[in-house]
Amino acid sequence: MVTATSLRTNHDRLMRSLEEVSAIGRLDDRSIDRRAFNEADMAARRWLVETCRERGLRAELDAAGNVRAWGPDASSPMQDSSRRPDDPGPRPLLIGSHLDSVPQGGTLDGTLGVMIGLEVLTCLREVGELPRKPAELVAFSDEEGRFGGMFGSRALAGLLSPLDVERAVDLEGTSLVDAMAAHGLAAHDALHVRVQPGAYRAYLEVHIEQGPVLDAHGERLGVVTHVTGLLKWRVTLRGRSDHAGTTPMSMRRDAFAGLAEFAGEIPRLLEEHGGEHSVATIGNVTLSPGAANSVPGEAVFSVDVRDGDRAVLDDIAGAMRRALSAIARRRGLMFEFEVLGSIDPVPCDPAVVDALVAAARETGVEPRTMPSGAAHDAQSMAAIAPIGMIFAPSVGGRSHASAEWTHRDDIVLAADVCLAAARRLAATDPDRLPHEPPPRSEDDLPPAEEPPR
Amino acid sequence: MVTATSLRTNHDRLMRSLEEVSAIGRLDDRSIDRRAFNEADMAARRWLVETCRERGLRAELDAAGNVRAWGPDASSPMQDSSRRPDDPGPRPLLIGSHLDSVPQGGTLDGTLGVMIGLEVLTCLREVGELPRKPAELVAFSDEEGRFGGMFGSRALAGLLSPLDVERAVDLEGTSLVDAMAAHGLAAHDALHVRVQPGAYRAYLEVHIEQGPVLDAHGERLGVVTHVTGLLKWRVTLRGRSDHAGTTPMSMRRDAFAGLAEFAGEIPRLLEEHGGEHSVATIGNVTLSPGAANSVPGEAVFSVDVRDGDRAVLDDIAGAMRRALSAIARRRGLMFEFEVLGSIDPVPCDPAVVDALVAAARETGVEPRTMPSGAAHDAQSMAAIAPIGMIFAPSVGGRSHASAEWTHRDDIVLAADVCLAAARRLAATDPDRLPHEPPPRSEDDLPPAEEPPR
Repeated sequence: MVTATSLRTNHDRLMRSLEEVSAIGRLDDRSIDRRAFNEADMAARRWLVETCRERGLRAELDAAGNVRAWGPDASSPMQDSSRRPDDPGPRPLLIGSHLDSVPQGGTLDGTLGVMIGLEVLTCLREVGELPRKPAELVAFSDEEGRFGGMFGSRALAGLLSPLDVERAVDLEGTSLVDAMAAHGLAAHDALHVRVQPGAYRAYLEVHIEQGPVLDAHGERLGVVTHVTGLLKWRVTLRGRSDHAGTTPMSMRRDAFAGLAEFAGEIPRLLEEHGGEHSVATIGNVTLSPGAANSVPGEAVFSVDVRDGDRAVLDDIAGAMRRALSAIARRRGLMFEFEVLGSIDPVPCDPAVVDALVAAARETGVEPRTMPSGAAHDAQSMAAIAPIGMIFAPSVGGRSHASAEWTHRDDIVLAADVCLAAARRLAATDPDRLPHEPPPRSEDDLPPAEEPPR
Repeated sequence: MVTATSLRTNHDRLMRSLEEVSAIGRLDDRSIDRRAFNEADMAARRWLVETCRERGLRAELDAAGNVRAWGPDASSPMQDSSRRPDDPGPRPLLIGSHLDSVPQGGTLDGTLGVMIGLEVLTCLREVGELPRKPAELVAFSDEEGRFGGMFGSRALAGLLSPLDVERAVDLEGTSLVDAMAAHGLAAHDALHVRVQPGAYRAYLEVHIEQGPVLDAHGERLGVVTHVTGLLKWRVTLRGRSDHAGTTPMSMRRDAFAGLAEFAGEIPRLLEEHGGEHSVATIGNVTLSPGAANSVPGEAVFSVDVRDGDRAVLDDIAGAMRRALSAIARRRGLMFEFEVLGSIDPVPCDPAVVDALVAAARETGVEPRTMPSGAAHDAQSMAAIAPIGMIFAPSVGGRSHASAEWTHRDDIVLAADVCLAAARRLAATDPDRLPHEPPPRSEDDLPPAEEPPR
């Protein structure tokens, strides 16, 4: 062990900070509304900047609305947006998540990861490892998607285009440009927030699982192996709208009956073409004309398919297309297939995964290695840094609702593991990198001390 | 044959009157908007009153907004709302349908039956059979349901309650009371329009089929044997809304998957428990939360089941309930079952059916006897009179849309058959009835001259 095994986060301080920030944007039902760039979201960001400063850290809001905090005496990471991997001194570790919420979100979600990052930086500063072993905290803006999602992390990773900024509009028709201007932020400046690939040692994110797996298995901590990829389609089945009373069953071209048949085939399609973790969901259905006494002439529905392997996703997609085509032919329907989203799976960095697993064991827990079915800022960050994620169990798998809950013991465990992992990763200072941005592979990090599971 | 077999309606006059009335409330796409008690609907009613008078008939709007027309020299049917079956003289035959439309309705629908009734009365007057063999025309108000449906026929049949009148509101929130007041009608007076059971010899209605059966079989005329009964439910399946990415398939309680399974069982349920003409439709589906990336926690959907036999309807209902219950149990869902409507099947009067079949054959066509899957004013009228209906083919089964269409040959055939049937029914004047209202059975009419098919 290179790091002091006894170092723990300050559990009471962590829970207090979680409690304080959870009061910001709190609704009557104890959910929160901190949609990106609303008053509460910005108040939470100001609170974070203040709290960092009280703890002897330096902190600022960057041009994308991200809170960035770093160790005392270090130079601001925002002063030189072109910081290069070959700048002198060790590269910082970035730790964080997001503070914004869905309209009636829970109090943990991304906030947990930000508070744990804050606690980890506070501890590193207390033991004097900051700024010698540099680490930064980030609270990304608009992860949840009021304006499209992962705005802050995409800005930092250089994945934003001017058009993205220009066109982003929320469901009420408010533009991102106006929403940011209301807080004195020029949205287009977010394009200048980007850092060079390789500028960070690694990106660590703690998040609640938002699923039932850890809780159902009675496990206390997850280490993410990859963020699953996603295919999102809008499918239209078009038949003929007929009178529900006057049209014999044999003479119908019922679009909903076609959809129901397809939905019934999903388990088979996943079993035949999917992997262990493949999932598929029909979450949204609109029938036209949508009257009780009309045979549906049209069914428009969403299909959301996820898997950690691009080839498996494509295989499922092909099988679904064939199934829909056969159903449509048999039932006299037309079908259209519109791809709304296609996100490649993002693997976590094997060396970071190893460090997280080792840190968990050091902290006394055997973690579950698992995929993340939800999207996270870590996906954006993977474009410029090795990433790793820790999951804390979600009781009953609940999230994005007031019922979102993680036991205190599991919260502080995640914080302790994050701290241990941060110290491990900082302790294994790499050799200086060449002038060229490094390949984002496991060679980017030294071998782990303990083998991954 | 008692009647002159050679009497035909005036085909050109019939088509002209159809054309004239179709211009009232015409929209750009050649559909019409004559929702009950809108300006166009009332204009069409005024046009009808005027046209009747031009043809030597007497006509008025009654307190329910129905146009009523009758032969010259006869007393107004509205003057004595308590007209009893034992009043001296033969009882009139009532012929009609409705003039109102759905928001983007076709030009035929009920209007065809009204125009044919007008043509039949005109012919009867021309050959001098009116008022000796009395017949009346009626154009009922709000059949289509802006304010609930079959308002005028329910008023005439004494099926309206003060509460029905009081509470009727359209989708925009306009009350029936206000909508009628805008045209100088006091809605509550509609309660006084009712006539005594037995006051009419019979009620005849011509309507487009609104279904594909005649057209698909190349048949030109239908004689309705019964109006099918209907069960209408709202079913709620309640599972758990989960994240579509983080919840393994095996841990889901997907309400939509339950609905899809149920929809897939409908053909089997109808085959096992239904009759030849049973139909069932899921026309409306609402998923919650309804997001592409959420497993649906709730599915609310309509089920519309129709059959001509009450016992069959109840059997299907029981089987569906069991199927839903089994699906819900297996999938960890709750289910609720709300009955939104239950309408008993209404048989047409066998003697009137016989007369219509005989009239069709006399006119040179073998009719198809068939159920009506759609609801019609005839259903209300069955409470006070023997009913019979003629169907004209709907091309492609289209209705309630600009594509609604019936060939001219089939329209004039329906008119000729209606005229022949009216004369048959008038020619077989019954003995005076006893003072008590007669039972509404086939004994109410003399035996038909030709056997029904």
